[in-house]
Amino acid sequence: MKLLSFAQGDRTGVALQRGDGSFMDLAAIGFSTMLDIVAAGPERLHDISQWDADTQEAPLTGNICILAPIPHPVRDVFCVGKNYLRHAKEFGSSGFDSGNTGGDEVPDAPIIFTKATTSVAAPESPICTAFDPDDSVDYEGELAVIIGTGGRNIAKQDAMSHVFGYTVLNDVTAREAQKRHKQWVLGKGIDGFCPMGPVILVANSNLDVTGLRLVTEVNGEIRQDGQISDLIFDIPTLIATISAYITLVPGDIIATGTPEGVGIGFDPPRYLRPGDIVTVSIEPIGSLSNPVT
Amino acid sequence: MKLLSFAQGDRTGVALQRGDGSFMDLAAIGFSTMLDIVAAGPERLHDISQWDADTQEAPLTGNICILAPIPHPVRDVFCVGKNYLRHAKEFGSSGFDSGNTGGDEVPDAPIIFTKATTSVAAPESPICTAFDPDDSVDYEGELAVIIGTGGRNIAKQDAMSHVFGYTVLNDVTAREAQKRHKQWVLGKGIDGFCPMGPVILVANSNLDVTGLRLVTEVNGEIRQDGQISDLIFDIPTLIATISAYITLVPGDIIATGTPEGVGIGFDPPRYLRPGDIVTVSIEPIGSLSNPVT
Repeated sequence: MKLLSFAQGDRTGVALQRGDGSFMDLAAIGFSTMLDIVAAGPERLHDISQWDADTQEAPLTGNICILAPIPHPVRDVFCVGKNYLRHAKEFGSSGFDSGNTGGDEVPDAPIIFTKATTSVAAPESPICTAFDPDDSVDYEGELAVIIGTGGRNIAKQDAMSHVFGYTVLNDVTAREAQKRHKQWVLGKGIDGFCPMGPVILVANSNLDVTGLRLVTEVNGEIRQDGQISDLIFDIPTLIATISAYITLVPGDIIATGTPEGVGIGFDPPRYLRPGDIVTVSIEPIGSLSNPVT
Repeated sequence: MKLLSFAQGDRTGVALQRGDGSFMDLAAIGFSTMLDIVAAGPERLHDISQWDADTQEAPLTGNICILAPIPHPVRDVFCVGKNYLRHAKEFGSSGFDSGNTGGDEVPDAPIIFTKATTSVAAPESPICTAFDPDDSVDYEGELAVIIGTGGRNIAKQDAMSHVFGYTVLNDVTAREAQKRHKQWVLGKGIDGFCPMGPVILVANSNLDVTGLRLVTEVNGEIRQDGQISDLIFDIPTLIATISAYITLVPGDIIATGTPEGVGIGFDPPRYLRPGDIVTVSIEPIGSLSNPVT
C-alpha cells in the first residue's frame, strides 16, 4: 500500500495511491496528515486497506501537488554516514571527511547525524545551489525508514515491527560546509536539501526491502546503482543502535545511507549545477526527482 | 522578566516568576505553553509584562513542578562544540575528539551539532547513567539562546533582535559514544541528557549576557567557572552562521558551548556517578540542578 501527502488548492491532505495511479483521499475516513496515520497504529492502517477495498468513493480529481510524505517531521531526520562499503571508501579518500583520522574509512559503529526539519522538501521541489556559499552541492540517494511504533532499547529481532514504511530520500549535501564545520548539521541541513517521496510504501510481512535496487541519475546519467542488501549496518541494527540511546517516536525518519557514486567520488568532483535534474529511484517505492536551480 | 513552564496535578502551564519568587499563571491571559508565547511575538510579550504590573490575580498556590522551559521543542536542539578556548584545548587533547586530526583544537568555524528533542529534561530530573552503556557520562554547563522571530540569512547586526531569551542548559554527554559514533548525535542525544531551566530570562535591550558568569558544580565542588564573554563565536555569529544554512524558527534553541572543566578534562576523567548532584548556575537566570542516578 502506498500513501502520500498532497496539496490541492489551499488544502493539504493525505491519500492512498492505487495500482492504477489514482489517488483516494483519506479525508473520507478522517485522516488529514501522515503523522495522524502513523500515530493511529496498525489497526487503523488495516482499516485503511479495508476501506480501499470496499469504498465507493470517487478518486481525487484535478491536479494535486505531491508533498514530502511527512512535510513537517516531529523532529530532525536521523541519517547514517558511510553505510555502504564502496561509498565509505570514496568519501574517506575524497578529502571531505572531517572525521577521518586516516585509514578508518569503514566505520566500526553506525555514524548517526541529523538533517533539520526545514530541509525536508517535496518531489519536484528545487534544490537551490545559491543556498550553499561554496557551490559544492552533492546528491546522496537513500532508502529512508519511517518509524511507526516508537520505543527505547528496541531489540534487533523486534525492530522490523517498529517500521511503518519506506520512502526515497536525497541527502543533499554542501560538501565544503560539511567539511569546514566538522559536525555535519550545517552542510546537511540546508533548506530544501532533504527531498523525500513520492510515497511511503507501507511495510508488511511480505515486503523485503533488502532486495531492492537504488539508482540515482543526474540528467539521465546513472551515478549511483546500489543494492539495499549492501548496507554495512542493516535496518534492524540501525533501529537497535539509535534506540539504545534515543527513544524513537512515531514518525521518526531514518535515512539509511548512500551507495557509491556521489559527486565527490569523481576527480574533479561533479557537483550539481543549475539546470540539472537529479532523480533517485527505488522500485517499487518510486522515483524522487528534483530540479537544481 | 522570567518565564517558566510548570506542571501542577495533571495540568501543565506557563507562568511568570516575580521578583519575590511567586508565580503568576499566564492561563489568566490565554497562554498555556511557552511556544505559544514565543510565537505570539514582541507585542504580546509586552502585554504580559503590562498584565504583570496591573493584575489583581492571586499567585499560583500549592506545589508546582518546574518543567524544561520548552518541554517539547519544535525540533532538535542546536549546540556548539568547542566554543571556549580552554575547553577546546582540553577536549582536543582528551582523546575523545573524533574529529580531531591533530593540532586543530581551536575551530576555524562553528561546530554545530544537535541534541534530540527527547533528551530535553526538567530541572531536578534525574540524569540516568544506566542509559550510557559505557558509563562515561559527563556534564557541560552552557548558556542557551531561545529564538523568537525566525529567519534565514540573519545578519550579525540584526541577530540579537531574533533572541526571545536565555536559559541554562546542561549538555550531558556520553563520552565513549560521542567518540565511537564520530558524529555526536547518539552520545549527546540520550533521553534526559539535556536538562534545561529553570526559567527563560526574556531578552531586553538592557540585558547583556556577555557579562554573565557560568559556574558548574558537582556535589558543591566548582568544576567549571567561565565567562560568557569568552565565547570564541559569539551569539550574533552563531545566529548568523546557522541561519546562513538553516531557516531558524520560533522556539529554536541554541546551546552556545561549554567552558573548560568538564570531566574528561581531568586525568583520569571524572565522570558523573549515581548519587552526584550537578548544578549549572548563570545568575541572574538561575541554577539548574539535576541528580545523577
